[in-house]
Amino acid sequence: MKRTYIRDLHDHIGKEVSIAGWVDVRRDHGKLVFIDLRDATGTVQMVALPNHEEAHALAHTVRPEWVLGIKGQVNKRPEKMVNVNTPTGDIEIEILGVEILNKAQELPFEKSTELNLDTYLDYLPLTLRTARSRAIFRVQAHIIQAFRNFLSKEGFTEIQVPKIAGGDAEGGAAAFPIEYFGHTAFLATSPQLYKQIMVGVFEKVFATGNIYRAEKHSTTRHINEYTSLDLEMGFIKDHADIMELETRFLHFLLKRLLESCAEDFKLLIAELPALPAAIPTMKLREAQEIIKKETGEDCTNAPDLEPQHERWLCEYAHKKFASDFIFITHYPVKKRPFYTYEDENDLGYTKSFDLLFRGLEITTGGQRINDHDKLVANIKAWGLDPEKFSYYLQSFKYGMPPEGGLAIGLERITAKLLGLENIKEATLFPRDLNRIDTLLSE
Amino acid sequence: MKRTYIRDLHDHIGKEVSIAGWVDVRRDHGKLVFIDLRDATGTVQMVALPNHEEAHALAHTVRPEWVLGIKGQVNKRPEKMVNVNTPTGDIEIEILGVEILNKAQELPFEKSTELNLDTYLDYLPLTLRTARSRAIFRVQAHIIQAFRNFLSKEGFTEIQVPKIAGGDAEGGAAAFPIEYFGHTAFLATSPQLYKQIMVGVFEKVFATGNIYRAEKHSTTRHINEYTSLDLEMGFIKDHADIMELETRFLHFLLKRLLESCAEDFKLLIAELPALPAAIPTMKLREAQEIIKKETGEDCTNAPDLEPQHERWLCEYAHKKFASDFIFITHYPVKKRPFYTYEDENDLGYTKSFDLLFRGLEITTGGQRINDHDKLVANIKAWGLDPEKFSYYLQSFKYGMPPEGGLAIGLERITAKLLGLENIKEATLFPRDLNRIDTLLSE
Repeated sequence: MKRTYIRDLHDHIGKEVSIAGWVDVRRDHGKLVFIDLRDATGTVQMVALPNHEEAHALAHTVRPEWVLGIKGQVNKRPEKMVNVNTPTGDIEIEILGVEILNKAQELPFEKSTELNLDTYLDYLPLTLRTARSRAIFRVQAHIIQAFRNFLSKEGFTEIQVPKIAGGDAEGGAAAFPIEYFGHTAFLATSPQLYKQIMVGVFEKVFATGNIYRAEKHSTTRHINEYTSLDLEMGFIKDHADIMELETRFLHFLLKRLLESCAEDFKLLIAELPALPAAIPTMKLREAQEIIKKETGEDCTNAPDLEPQHERWLCEYAHKKFASDFIFITHYPVKKRPFYTYEDENDLGYTKSFDLLFRGLEITTGGQRINDHDKLVANIKAWGLDPEKFSYYLQSFKYGMPPEGGLAIGLERITAKLLGLENIKEATLFPRDLNRIDTLLSE
Repeated sequence: MKRTYIRDLHDHIGKEVSIAGWVDVRRDHGKLVFIDLRDATGTVQMVALPNHEEAHALAHTVRPEWVLGIKGQVNKRPEKMVNVNTPTGDIEIEILGVEILNKAQELPFEKSTELNLDTYLDYLPLTLRTARSRAIFRVQAHIIQAFRNFLSKEGFTEIQVPKIAGGDAEGGAAAFPIEYFGHTAFLATSPQLYKQIMVGVFEKVFATGNIYRAEKHSTTRHINEYTSLDLEMGFIKDHADIMELETRFLHFLLKRLLESCAEDFKLLIAELPALPAAIPTMKLREAQEIIKKETGEDCTNAPDLEPQHERWLCEYAHKKFASDFIFITHYPVKKRPFYTYEDENDLGYTKSFDLLFRGLEITTGGQRINDHDKLVANIKAWGLDPEKFSYYLQSFKYGMPPEGGLAIGLERITAKLLGLENIKEATLFPRDLNRIDTLLSE
């Protein structure tokens, strides 16, 4: 008999089906053995009754995470037994036959146990199987796909960007060295230079891929390998065009998540954020003045925001503008990479922005310098060697329109959308100072 | 005035529009100056007439790759001037105003010049702007998106796989070492172990990302960093289920390319391949017997196919089965990675396959071992250390269904679909033994 997916069981009420999956939970009441079976599409409660002797005997023996093939009948549950909190809460499978496809060893802990982060990470192949983890990474898959789908509709072309780089391109972030056929290469800290090159080719491009920061952080916000959602486009007026595009993307994203991931948000007790038609926007200096005025803390001379000020501004935006997002613009020239466009009407400050969301910066973007000579002058002013940028600079020698772009950290937006405390919970297999899957020994 | 994209100009015939883009070609006939302008959506011929004095004077000065904003009128061309080979061949823009958004230096060669591969690579930021390169990478973007869209429709979940690995997972391919906070890590040679782990979580998963091979190849088929289209799924009967899925994907892909990339295929003088409903399939030993019988070359004792035999088999499949694809199955156990499933009905040979396409292997796949103890035994038999696989092995300790998967090389399938001679032409910024953008110096 052809396998039926759990999601489709409602089409087979009163009929016999063949289903397959993992034992999520087993409750043995002696006469009645209840098994929740999990497949790619959902979970369903099954019951083994004593009158189906062989199946009942087998059901007694199964344990969590065993892999089963089941012949069963789809029954509607009596009204008072309906569980409205799950999509299959109105049906139950009466087990007619059990095939054990694979056994599992005894679990080191019950899957529902709350674990500390290290134990959770030590057992990821198992702990990722919990309803909670599955919900998180299902939502993440929808986020990255929404990014690509939105931009494809907007006429962007996807590009595949190399991660082996000849040098640390931006000159700021720390890069991991690679031994490359007798040379030293580096893991890319961003696809920045390549996406700018590709504006010259396709005008509007995006890339989704891993990037690397060799920073010895140990915080709840940083990981050493993460997924960057990057876009870059030509023929913009200024950075506001990029902010407008991101705002439209966020509306698109929330609509998609509402349609596709409502169950996951419910399970995670996560709420979709407040997103007004226009996201509140202020210059860094305005934000600093407000912080000073409202909290008494004077950060007006700082070139950037401290984490606690990012959190404060988000609370402020939530209260004042009913928005969980706020754009901060015009970071000082010297605080941004060499390619950032200086505002001719606000010298010393850039046409750049960060997007803060629920207390955390999830996007950096802005307009870039598209004039070749200005770019060369800046590379020198930043203490870098123009010779090392000769490849990149070709794009600007041979005609580049006014352009800009942004990058969104996939794990950060996932964590903040779902209210996760640590970015590692939003990273499938996080790499950090101490861990590549297992703990690194000294 | 709001910018109109070139693709949409037909909606504005007889009207004034504002367009923007790069000078693709300029032909100066004195009185008439013709400029082909290129934007994200296409190319259109424009003409500057002497009666618009200022615009005409400016049009004289512009050069290839200059970036222009144009005010112009969309005119229908007289019937005999229509160029049926381009989507805008029936219209022309009469230039009313020219704004120079950015100039370009003189090009090192005309864009239409045929270049040797090294010069092409030295000037990628420029040479990628040719119609030929743009067509190649537009098709590539459609291929990777078709892969994701097809699998999403099939209920697969996308996963983000780390590329920093603790060891060379498969034990076969050469891996680049990374300096990782005082430890040696490696660039992933494949997402294999992670996608298998994730079958335990989502049952059906896919990943699209960069992978790395530290092999000192210098061929037209190999690069050191490439994009792998990976899928893995549980509850299969055997490898034939994976082959059936790939066949359906290929039909989906060709349909998409026909719908979306017909112009690109025309420009590249590339033909969609012959793909029958079922792709011809034979065991490696059968293929070797046919090669021996038909060509006299005896490769019947070889554990794998030589490149010239792969080419010969594809020609054979084309003639005999009207198929540009052929599956070869049952490679010897010892020639495949430790996780490959041995055929219980054909001992010594595996439930694995390669897909050959127009002379080249573009996919490797098969059923995997899902029994924990058998896997441990194989790891030892392959001379590897089970301790180093402890993370991966958890998945098999805690219940794994029969499962399998495949990987498609994005650059290889792009090159073969488009009839490109060298895989580097299908790689945006290829990394090889001698080159990371620029040539590596000694």
